[in-house]
Amino acid sequence: MVESLSFSDTFEPNFRPLVAIELAKGTKEETIEWFTKRIVDKKANGGAQLLVKPLVTENGGENIYLVGASHLRLLLGAEAVGLVKECNDNSMRTFTYSSRKTFKDFADDNHNFLTMSECQYIIKHELENLRAKDEKMIPGYPQAKLYPGKSIVRRLLTNGILVQIFPLHDREELKKLRHSWYGRVKVGYQPLDEIRCYFGETIALYFGFLEYFTFALIPMAVIGIPYYVFAWEDYDKYVMFATFNLLWSTVILEVWKRICAIMTYRWGTLLMKRQFEEPRPGFHGVLGINPVTGREEPVYSSIKRQIRIYLVSLPFVCLCLYFSLYVMMIYFDLEQWALDYHEENESNFSSLMLFVPSIIYAVVIEIMNRVYRYAAEFLTSWENHRLESSYQNHLILKVLVFNFLNCFASLFYIAFVLFDMKLLRQSLATLLITSQILNQFAESLLPYWLQKRHKKRMKKHMCSLKTDMDLSLVEQVNLEKEMGTYFGTFDDYLELFLQFGYVSLFSCVYPLAAVFAVLNNITEIYSDALKMCRVYKRPFAEPTANIGVWQLAFETMSVISVVTNCILIGMSPQVNALFPDSKMDLILTVALAEHLLLAIKFIMAFVIPDKPRDIQIKLAKLEFESLEALKQQVRTTDVTTTTV
Amino acid sequence: MVESLSFSDTFEPNFRPLVAIELAKGTKEETIEWFTKRIVDKKANGGAQLLVKPLVTENGGENIYLVGASHLRLLLGAEAVGLVKECNDNSMRTFTYSSRKTFKDFADDNHNFLTMSECQYIIKHELENLRAKDEKMIPGYPQAKLYPGKSIVRRLLTNGILVQIFPLHDREELKKLRHSWYGRVKVGYQPLDEIRCYFGETIALYFGFLEYFTFALIPMAVIGIPYYVFAWEDYDKYVMFATFNLLWSTVILEVWKRICAIMTYRWGTLLMKRQFEEPRPGFHGVLGINPVTGREEPVYSSIKRQIRIYLVSLPFVCLCLYFSLYVMMIYFDLEQWALDYHEENESNFSSLMLFVPSIIYAVVIEIMNRVYRYAAEFLTSWENHRLESSYQNHLILKVLVFNFLNCFASLFYIAFVLFDMKLLRQSLATLLITSQILNQFAESLLPYWLQKRHKKRMKKHMCSLKTDMDLSLVEQVNLEKEMGTYFGTFDDYLELFLQFGYVSLFSCVYPLAAVFAVLNNITEIYSDALKMCRVYKRPFAEPTANIGVWQLAFETMSVISVVTNCILIGMSPQVNALFPDSKMDLILTVALAEHLLLAIKFIMAFVIPDKPRDIQIKLAKLEFESLEALKQQVRTTDVTTTTV
Repeated sequence: MVESLSFSDTFEPNFRPLVAIELAKGTKEETIEWFTKRIVDKKANGGAQLLVKPLVTENGGENIYLVGASHLRLLLGAEAVGLVKECNDNSMRTFTYSSRKTFKDFADDNHNFLTMSECQYIIKHELENLRAKDEKMIPGYPQAKLYPGKSIVRRLLTNGILVQIFPLHDREELKKLRHSWYGRVKVGYQPLDEIRCYFGETIALYFGFLEYFTFALIPMAVIGIPYYVFAWEDYDKYVMFATFNLLWSTVILEVWKRICAIMTYRWGTLLMKRQFEEPRPGFHGVLGINPVTGREEPVYSSIKRQIRIYLVSLPFVCLCLYFSLYVMMIYFDLEQWALDYHEENESNFSSLMLFVPSIIYAVVIEIMNRVYRYAAEFLTSWENHRLESSYQNHLILKVLVFNFLNCFASLFYIAFVLFDMKLLRQSLATLLITSQILNQFAESLLPYWLQKRHKKRMKKHMCSLKTDMDLSLVEQVNLEKEMGTYFGTFDDYLELFLQFGYVSLFSCVYPLAAVFAVLNNITEIYSDALKMCRVYKRPFAEPTANIGVWQLAFETMSVISVVTNCILIGMSPQVNALFPDSKMDLILTVALAEHLLLAIKFIMAFVIPDKPRDIQIKLAKLEFESLEALKQQVRTTDVTTTTV
Repeated sequence: MVESLSFSDTFEPNFRPLVAIELAKGTKEETIEWFTKRIVDKKANGGAQLLVKPLVTENGGENIYLVGASHLRLLLGAEAVGLVKECNDNSMRTFTYSSRKTFKDFADDNHNFLTMSECQYIIKHELENLRAKDEKMIPGYPQAKLYPGKSIVRRLLTNGILVQIFPLHDREELKKLRHSWYGRVKVGYQPLDEIRCYFGETIALYFGFLEYFTFALIPMAVIGIPYYVFAWEDYDKYVMFATFNLLWSTVILEVWKRICAIMTYRWGTLLMKRQFEEPRPGFHGVLGINPVTGREEPVYSSIKRQIRIYLVSLPFVCLCLYFSLYVMMIYFDLEQWALDYHEENESNFSSLMLFVPSIIYAVVIEIMNRVYRYAAEFLTSWENHRLESSYQNHLILKVLVFNFLNCFASLFYIAFVLFDMKLLRQSLATLLITSQILNQFAESLLPYWLQKRHKKRMKKHMCSLKTDMDLSLVEQVNLEKEMGTYFGTFDDYLELFLQFGYVSLFSCVYPLAAVFAVLNNITEIYSDALKMCRVYKRPFAEPTANIGVWQLAFETMSVISVVTNCILIGMSPQVNALFPDSKMDLILTVALAEHLLLAIKFIMAFVIPDKPRDIQIKLAKLEFESLEALKQQVRTTDVTTTTV
């Protein structure tokens, strides 16, 4: 970290607001003064050395502050967060201020060298790493304790003094992006690089995955259609379809890794070493020295974390899973009871009663999901992960397993306990289609409509009839601060994951699933795009090199689907008819086929390299250069030492 | 590569011979002159800048040359091969000549900073990388063509001009090593660090693995004994034993990775970036620029290699496997025929005939093994791998699969086609015990005895009655050049691998296998040690960070053994008696248990980190420092450029 920026950096003539901070109404004057002073203060004094301006509104409620930074400060911040940019020789390198001239498109007066989302990410990083020094509490709030190394912003947030921090939209850029993303009628790829520039890598990668996944499902859908149209029920055709699906899903997941590597290499995040970053703001521990980077930061024992994960979180998750299964069994009992009741005394009331178990079950599942999600967030936060990615992965894994069970347990029960293929096909179709429609409605169309209404009311309230483009900064900030917050890609990935489950787990029972999935995903791209651009506050960009634990989740799903499909084929009457004499031969044949398929899957996953060869070479080259530089440096240091 | 050693490096008063080169008798004078000149020549002129002395024997046959190097040359060579050594601050770093002062135990007059085996490795590396420049052929041998970049030593070897290159023993050191290794009566761990200093990392790692594996088998052996003694045949006891074995084998293989990382970190090879090394001498291609290191070396397209692997080698291996299975089926037919013949006309001749099929099969297998091995070596060499490790892994994989089939196919046939558990147990015991006894005999005791006889004859011939220690250099070299060549650890690992197969694949049928394995391995350690120290020429040290493809092979074996053991338990009469009504329930239960075990295995392998935490931190620290150095270097370069 270079802390040597002293030359006239506190005043910048053209202040460009990047991030808005909303404080609670009635925040004490001394707190505001202390907080803004810490933000503006020199790095050497433990400040963030950013620029702050209060947003002066008509009614004078001065509880919103705009944060910006000088161009120089942003460049130094880019070095601190370890941004990777393209050099003049087309290689990707970690940006440093002193080597700035070697980077492509760099010029001292080119303020577009860093994208706006990168600038906002830098400011977020600097604000979050504003840590307490010798303050014992937040001035004006004696109950808000501080200790050395505690993130100030986090303490302000948990104490409700700070309401929110959010990056501002760039109306001009957003309009351009909207146009090229979903404004044109022309069908084409999404402008992923532009999305990345505006929303950051995590969101661009989600849209990239969504698009890739949709394309990858098309062969499945195309092959699935004739099965539905001609009502093919032949044994060999089903086996062929299932086999193709199972191997295909391995191929698409392996190929995605390669595509992801190509994209994130171009974006620089593949080379970003996030593990060397400063810890996430929620991370706490005794102030110590990081053994890897040698920087002063909170330190927390990895063994303690392991104990928390394996002795508390893991048993808790298992218990919840058991409870969820138990609830499902009660539901099936209730269903049976309602059916019996209806058969015994047939009446209007009894046929109404038939729906009661399903409704109760749906409500209970929804409640369980919410409670569990809250508990999972609490536990993962309590596990105290140092890196945001590690926190996310552990949280996702916890929620994933529970959702998987809730979604598919009843289908598994119908398939492998009740052996009712008709009911399975019917439930599958109902679940898939209704969940897709509901999701699209609840996720973007409803919020969009609410948003529109709210905006209209706001505008009327402000008595302004200007167009979207002419909104003043005050109006823009006031509008955006009321918009919903986008809580990350979790729910979007979860939706895709469950969809992949519907498509692959029982693919040989319902070949049409892939068709619905493709249709849904095409509209999903547009509704998600609308959601990002119109409904939510702009989210902070989050650099990422891959889709993290989702890759593992999709791969696990594809392994499980080998097992389920083999069993389903083994249970089908057509296949049973082939082995009239002995069930044993049938089961052994199915088991053999399953093992063969699994073996092929694992060999394929092993043989297909995760990164294309040219990316591998580029990474190796960088590693080689790093090692050579280290040798060189030791040499230089040595020479210096011996000279002195 | 630093090529700036010009200060009085061609003459060294105390020449220490490290490596011996044996040329064919009657090699032309001009060839010898040219070759020695290339060895002695300056680096700048494309030479190796080593020291050469002819070995003057009594009968004047000057076909052996001793190669040594100055201390400075060796240090520069250590930098070129990328040796990693311990620094004064206890961290491991790549050695560079200019930073030599920062390394532990370094002093300009300390000639023991590099171990003798490291020096010999450096000399081997330099000799092998002596590449042709503008020579069109080897002087004196117009048929031995050369082209720019072709390894001279390799061409000399293939043309029979060079008979062999081998490192010399250090009698003093060897005696010490022998004493601490197997000379003492005291039972204890092997002196792995000393073995590594003398024989290099590959061999030390083999002995480390052998020792670890023996310890790891002890629990299995201890639990297995009562099963044999009390002839336990209960279903639940067998299930418990098999389950323990299967999970235990996963644990030991995962823990081995961690132990291996600890050892190789200490030895420096974990950090050695072998992929940046110069290519193996057998590698050929058009002279070009390596895209990673930027050095000039032969370049060969990776796609061509892939095509050769997947379109030629893979089909060939599959064909061989099929052929081997075919031969096995013929053997079983013959066996059946001999049995029928014996039953029909019982006579002495017919009972002799009973043995004929086995003998024929054994001979055919031996021939097939040898032919296949030769073919595999040819194919792997033709695949043209750049790195020695890659070559080795591909060769090992090919030979491994074939050997696995030859060894276990008949056992599988007996178990799962004939369903004869008695015969299986019997064959297993016979195969395991006889193969162990034969191996130990053929591998070390027999060569040792031959060696002893040969030595005595040699001594008589030389008319010298001195003790081992007083042998002159001439006598030593003449003795060693006649010793057998150790062809690497392949056969030793293969023996262990097959043993692991006998122990784990059918563990629930023959629990005593682990006991025999432990007993065998204890003597194996001693006989292998004897073999290394007494029977073979000293091998060149080969730095390595892990046991390579063997880890994968052992892991695969442990996965296969889950399947076989589950089937065996499912077939046992005791378990069958538990499901008297329906075979189907039995098979489904077994299949469920198998899937559960496999899932647990994979989760365990995923959860147990491959490297201990402190090693992870040390590696991360080095990576961080490298990246920082790269940033720093770019900065320095930039400053220099702007100054200029």
